[in-house]
Amino acid sequence: MRITRRETFNAAHRLFRPDWDDQKNLEVFGKCSNPKWHGHNYTLYVTVEGDVDPSTGFVLNLKTLSQIIDKHVTDKLDHRNINLEVDFMKDKLASTENLAIGIWEQLEGHVLGLGARLYCVKLIETENNYVEYYGPTK
Amino acid sequence: MRITRRETFNAAHRLFRPDWDDQKNLEVFGKCSNPKWHGHNYTLYVTVEGDVDPSTGFVLNLKTLSQIIDKHVTDKLDHRNINLEVDFMKDKLASTENLAIGIWEQLEGHVLGLGARLYCVKLIETENNYVEYYGPTK
Amino acid sequence: MRITRRETFNAAHRLFRPDWDDQKNLEVFGKCSNPKWHGHNYTLYVTVEGDVDPSTGFVLNLKTLSQIIDKHVTDKLDHRNINLEVDFMKDKLASTENLAIGIWEQLEGHVLGLGARLYCVKLIETENNYVEYYGPTK
Amino acid sequence: MRITRRETFNAAHRLFRPDWDDQKNLEVFGKCSNPKWHGHNYTLYVTVEGDVDPSTGFVLNLKTLSQIIDKHVTDKLDHRNINLEVDFMKDKLASTENLAIGIWEQLEGHVLGLGARLYCVKLIETENNYVEYYGPTK
Amino acid sequence: MRITRRETFNAAHRLFRPDWDDQKNLEVFGKCSNPKWHGHNYTLYVTVEGDVDPSTGFVLNLKTLSQIIDKHVTDKLDHRNINLEVDFMKDKLASTENLAIGIWEQLEGHVLGLGARLYCVKLIETENNYVEYYGPTK
Amino acid sequence: MRITRRETFNAAHRLFRPDWDDQKNLEVFGKCSNPKWHGHNYTLYVTVEGDVDPSTGFVLNLKTLSQIIDKHVTDKLDHRNINLEVDFMKDKLASTENLAIGIWEQLEGHVLGLGARLYCVKLIETENNYVEYYGPTK
Repeated sequence: MRITRRETFNAAHRLFRPDWDDQKNLEVFGKCSNPKWHGHNYTLYVTVEGDVDPSTGFVLNLKTLSQIIDKHVTDKLDHRNINLEVDFMKDKLASTENLAIGIWEQLEGHVLGLGARLYCVKLIETENNYVEYYGPTK
Repeated sequence: MRITRRETFNAAHRLFRPDWDDQKNLEVFGKCSNPKWHGHNYTLYVTVEGDVDPSTGFVLNLKTLSQIIDKHVTDKLDHRNINLEVDFMKDKLASTENLAIGIWEQLEGHVLGLGARLYCVKLIETENNYVEYYGPTK
Repeated sequence: MRITRRETFNAAHRLFRPDWDDQKNLEVFGKCSNPKWHGHNYTLYVTVEGDVDPSTGFVLNLKTLSQIIDKHVTDKLDHRNINLEVDFMKDKLASTENLAIGIWEQLEGHVLGLGARLYCVKLIETENNYVEYYGPTK
Repeated sequence: MRITRRETFNAAHRLFRPDWDDQKNLEVFGKCSNPKWHGHNYTLYVTVEGDVDPSTGFVLNLKTLSQIIDKHVTDKLDHRNINLEVDFMKDKLASTENLAIGIWEQLEGHVLGLGARLYCVKLIETENNYVEYYGPTK
Repeated sequence: MRITRRETFNAAHRLFRPDWDDQKNLEVFGKCSNPKWHGHNYTLYVTVEGDVDPSTGFVLNLKTLSQIIDKHVTDKLDHRNINLEVDFMKDKLASTENLAIGIWEQLEGHVLGLGARLYCVKLIETENNYVEYYGPTK
Repeated sequence: MRITRRETFNAAHRLFRPDWDDQKNLEVFGKCSNPKWHGHNYTLYVTVEGDVDPSTGFVLNLKTLSQIIDKHVTDKLDHRNINLEVDFMKDKLASTENLAIGIWEQLEGHVLGLGARLYCVKLIETENNYVEYYGPTK
């Protein structure tokens, strides 16, 4: 059984490498490399997998899962600059892929602590673009 | 090839165990245990898997699938009280997880009768919460 | 300028008149009169109208509006039985129309207190049905 | 007859007044005042009003309207910093209200040039917040 | 009080004038003039206005409104060719504007017969384009 | 890591076999066999799978993927008649299943050329019906 919690946050970011100049960043990353930033309303779907606990009918309590996501992910990202202000994205390219990996790493241990396994982090950047990360071994 | 049919229904329910008192139910299930019920607009996605029939271009006829879902699932749930009025949920905790399992059991044989395999029952309870059930052996 | 805040809640209800028997209620209200209740995920859009305050660029602070809606509307309705547990719906038919009027009456004075005018209460009951109420004089 | 075109863009912004310090900005604007910016996926609905031209069946050609919105609004805002890079928002508080007024002013004359009247600029900042502006005289 | 019913249908159509050749049609209508047709999933919102009947809490019974829309609009349009098969669109340009006017004319009398007034026909052709028609006198 | 691009197109089609008469086609395909065509707004989700390139933070550049989808899929389908005008659907039943397979075959090689693997083609025909194709070997 898989169960999914949706959360939302919005943030500013920029795709660029500090070892490249603005021109090179523009060639590779296009308008996403704008030095004065841009931003998105991100939608995050966290899917966990586990057995149904017969005493509650739950894989886990979604309220608890939501609190864990808020504490370790959303509160760190919401209304923030991903490049400058998010500890788990420090020194990383602020792509949607890397952000999904970072979110996975923030959550994996805490989900295990709830007796379930993190299955997928789906991160929607715009209505046209999203990524899904299933962990390092898949 | 997988093909999916969406159906909707709305229903009342309550999360509680009759062997617990209201206080204990409230601790575990929160406001979902309200003794006077609450309810949802549920959205159900039924995904079946099979080969494409070269004579029709179909895995199966979605109209037939829709009729089967209506007869065995939606008609039993729509505008009903899941705890009190749904035969296949009798004596079960009315969690989204258990409801998805119940819907799977209602549909599995009928989908096989159409020459396809039931692959996934996805049940959306609110815009923030949903479950996916892939059957007892996965 | 009009500004709108979306809120959500879910609740159980039943359409029926206590002075009619179940048969008569069924004829008029159909399956919405189910004596054992059903329920919905309601989506509420509260639109207020006013001038833009040049010192803030706001008609009003949406965070304050959201807190007022939570206190006077959502907290009273969420995970509740509209017929049995909501003070401002007591002795009223629990139709979407009457619920929208009730929500208007809950909010109108508080919005005035923020220096704006309540313009519209839009209440979506299902993806196919919604009502809009613009107040008693329109 | 009213006809509406939807366009999307994403941008960074910050709510703050340069004549207030960060503490005062934080009190009034909350986390929206973050000095390192945040951002949104904005959805813009431009509604124009006019008679149906019997020779085409159109109020106006939506392709032309879309090109005008792109040139005068979306191209100036998309992947930009609203506070720093958008000419028509210079020296204004970057609230959704002021952005909607700015978009109206960008478009009003051009829509008249197409033989129709600009009726409404609706700007959705998040799934929970949006504004509608109907022009200075309404 | 205004109450709205959503219905959906899908249909083929073509924008063209028979008194123009294909080249002239292409110049004016672009790829929408493709002689071999194209099509859409249309979403229709029918809004009616009236007083709340104190004996039912309804402006009108939405089930009845839905049946009227099905009989006079949806059944005539669904899975049809708007140019060739829809009686109320005969000899008209199959634009969204004209289709909305045609739907209004199909429904206006029947809504009056229910004791309410037709207020708006909103017709969504794509996620980016829609029209709203409020009747001939507005 | 999987990354997904959404694209949209609209088209006319008809479900029928030329070796069956209209009556037989009607029995099997229902109103989808209407000889004068009908149509849809299709939504296409193309998911590709690959490793994250450490020099860009990308699996691949979504702008490039979008251009490939436009050239090989969307431009051939948008505002077209699937039965009559689309080279890769020639002599095939125009079902959603076959269209998804055709789109897969159009894209598979080009995605490999970008250093990634095509993982899934999801094609939504209506809000109630969609198919997912994972390639010939799964």
